[in-house]
Amino acid sequence: MELAHARELDAADPLRAYRDEFVIAHDGLVYLDGNSLGRLPVKTRDRLREVVEREWGVDLIRGWSRWVDAARAAGDVIAGLVDAGPGEVLVSDSTSVNLYKLAVAALDARPGRTVIVTDDDNFPTDRYVLEGLAQQRGIELRMVHSDPDAGIAPEAVAAALDDRTALVSLSHVDYRSGAIADLVAITAAAHAVGALTLWDLSHSVGSVPVPLGRAGADLAVGCTYKHLNAGPGAPAFLYVRSDLQTVVRQPIWGWWGQRDQFAMGPAYDPVDSIERFQVGTPPILGVTAVRVGAELTAAAGIGAVAGKARALGAYAVELADAWLAPLGFTLASPREPERRGAHVSLAHPQGWQVCQALVDAGVVPDFRAPDRLRLGFAPLYTRFEDVYRGLVAIRDIVAAGKHLTYPTAPARVT
Amino acid sequence: MELAHARELDAADPLRAYRDEFVIAHDGLVYLDGNSLGRLPVKTRDRLREVVEREWGVDLIRGWSRWVDAARAAGDVIAGLVDAGPGEVLVSDSTSVNLYKLAVAALDARPGRTVIVTDDDNFPTDRYVLEGLAQQRGIELRMVHSDPDAGIAPEAVAAALDDRTALVSLSHVDYRSGAIADLVAITAAAHAVGALTLWDLSHSVGSVPVPLGRAGADLAVGCTYKHLNAGPGAPAFLYVRSDLQTVVRQPIWGWWGQRDQFAMGPAYDPVDSIERFQVGTPPILGVTAVRVGAELTAAAGIGAVAGKARALGAYAVELADAWLAPLGFTLASPREPERRGAHVSLAHPQGWQVCQALVDAGVVPDFRAPDRLRLGFAPLYTRFEDVYRGLVAIRDIVAAGKHLTYPTAPARVT
Repeated sequence: MELAHARELDAADPLRAYRDEFVIAHDGLVYLDGNSLGRLPVKTRDRLREVVEREWGVDLIRGWSRWVDAARAAGDVIAGLVDAGPGEVLVSDSTSVNLYKLAVAALDARPGRTVIVTDDDNFPTDRYVLEGLAQQRGIELRMVHSDPDAGIAPEAVAAALDDRTALVSLSHVDYRSGAIADLVAITAAAHAVGALTLWDLSHSVGSVPVPLGRAGADLAVGCTYKHLNAGPGAPAFLYVRSDLQTVVRQPIWGWWGQRDQFAMGPAYDPVDSIERFQVGTPPILGVTAVRVGAELTAAAGIGAVAGKARALGAYAVELADAWLAPLGFTLASPREPERRGAHVSLAHPQGWQVCQALVDAGVVPDFRAPDRLRLGFAPLYTRFEDVYRGLVAIRDIVAAGKHLTYPTAPARVT
Repeated sequence: MELAHARELDAADPLRAYRDEFVIAHDGLVYLDGNSLGRLPVKTRDRLREVVEREWGVDLIRGWSRWVDAARAAGDVIAGLVDAGPGEVLVSDSTSVNLYKLAVAALDARPGRTVIVTDDDNFPTDRYVLEGLAQQRGIELRMVHSDPDAGIAPEAVAAALDDRTALVSLSHVDYRSGAIADLVAITAAAHAVGALTLWDLSHSVGSVPVPLGRAGADLAVGCTYKHLNAGPGAPAFLYVRSDLQTVVRQPIWGWWGQRDQFAMGPAYDPVDSIERFQVGTPPILGVTAVRVGAELTAAAGIGAVAGKARALGAYAVELADAWLAPLGFTLASPREPERRGAHVSLAHPQGWQVCQALVDAGVVPDFRAPDRLRLGFAPLYTRFEDVYRGLVAIRDIVAAGKHLTYPTAPARVT
């Protein structure tokens, strides 16, 4: 319970040198929101300068000889983090657009089946995209109940499946609680009824190992601006298991999925590879940042990254039990470190007020409705000392009632 | 026919100072491919450094207070270039994805109608996206013939329309010939049968005035990495006439179109504004570059920009008539300057070989199948001297047969 102990933990941390790989403008800022927007890697700053100022500015159109396969190359780096093979991951579009593309691909691959299964605590854009598809196709969106703190039980998903199920689409790590879904068991249950799986890895890629290959998972999408540190609104990625790449088809027939693209032939004829799921011209600045961010995590090793995430979270829970439970906070995440991603949520009736007071005190968490303070622990740059200081700040603000002067109604928060 | 004359034209050019707004690494490079990838504006270089290094690197998640409306604000700048009003244009996704979103929106707004009209020389991604939609919905994609040199006749479009037509989707400026379609007349013809229009402005925005407002056009999309100089793979834009924004709906129900987005409520309920057509998190680096690029064109004035484009093109045609016609080149664009965008195509049986030889000689054009050398004239930075030097190089290469040593089969060219 002392700062000295936090510092001992930092000194013993095998990943401690990775903090130097990031731009840290104010060492005193306690940034616990890397799960919303990761920090800027130094190499990304340098590579973006190079891509903008030399590759675009000087090489001009000739830069495409270098950029043309960049989205696939960046995908290959991500593949190494999610137990996928080369050529199974592509950087493209936004998570929401990719989810739509792959959900349509899955539904078209299961003609006659009339049910999509998801859970009622899934991230909003996942629920909305699937709701839209269900409505447009006149099929059922079946909502499995997910405990907002403990996550989704594989048995609950299995019970919702039958031979009408076309698609099971869930998040691997829950955006609020951080609970890890059992990707292997749920994939097996889906396959047992002949359904396809579409996993959202937005909160798990770069924070926990993702067993896509071991599970034989079919399809996945994910975000890169959280734990892959690729910057605001950076392009997302998608995964299609290699044997499915010639079988399923996405619905937006863009020219970057076309075989012999620059022949510009009369009819759409998609390539037999991951680029089949590409639509328009890849966003080169974003793809550049994704690659550097993913390479950093790959260099540290996803096992080491996940191990530190668990240790940071366990330390936060220990401090919260001691200091914050008496102040009205409850843990809104699984208690067992191995059941959590790289963030922990703490519920408090005045959660939004506490969040605002923390930002003013130099601690940046985020907030998720209705009452959750979400604390993100980015293993590459968050120190045990940051966890300590963050929890001290929460304790001191609430104990002194400082948060009570802040507005009670959540405004627009990202 | 003398360099001195080209220099006189440059000296008299009211836009000549705009060249200094761009990074010009090698003043001797003759860059005639701004219609594929525009040059890097100095301000974009500076703003990208600022956004990456200060707004992301230092402000971190708090940057979103600034970024949250950036896609709409950048759209407002583009609106001024296409005769649209504030709140009618949004920067988002790629041109292909936007085309899909708005084409579906249009088809859903015309239930029971079973025909999409486009032309057989439309840009590949437009044809493919529409082909996909027609196939997925079991409706007809009706191809109007477009002359590959002269463009599309409004009468030919009108003749293809009837009360089964849901949507007319065409390019305003043809990607090969540069021919300008009569947006006003074709929109009126579409409206006369109750169809909606979806214009692709990729080659016209920033090169010619686009009369969306005057035409009462319904929907449009466009690219920003050509004449808006926003960089490789920069996000595209979409336009929805304001009165349609509460009537039509796009199919990808992402969270960035949701009313009260961060309440993360249970059901999708889209906003009543241009953000209804937003899907995922806006790509902030790209949006930044789009805004700066569009502001540069707006500052120069689209009338002046288009005027210089016509003058550069007319000068190129004059030199081509004198020097290149005798060498086997034919003009593959409308001869009248007012019927062309900011590029001119020259057909030659060894076009691809000539293109390669030109690049080695420090002149960058581009090539479009089967045999067209496409010369782009970006009015903000292309000089009459560049046109002169480019045409001299073509003449000298072909007259000496230097191109004949290059491969005959086009490789992948962007």
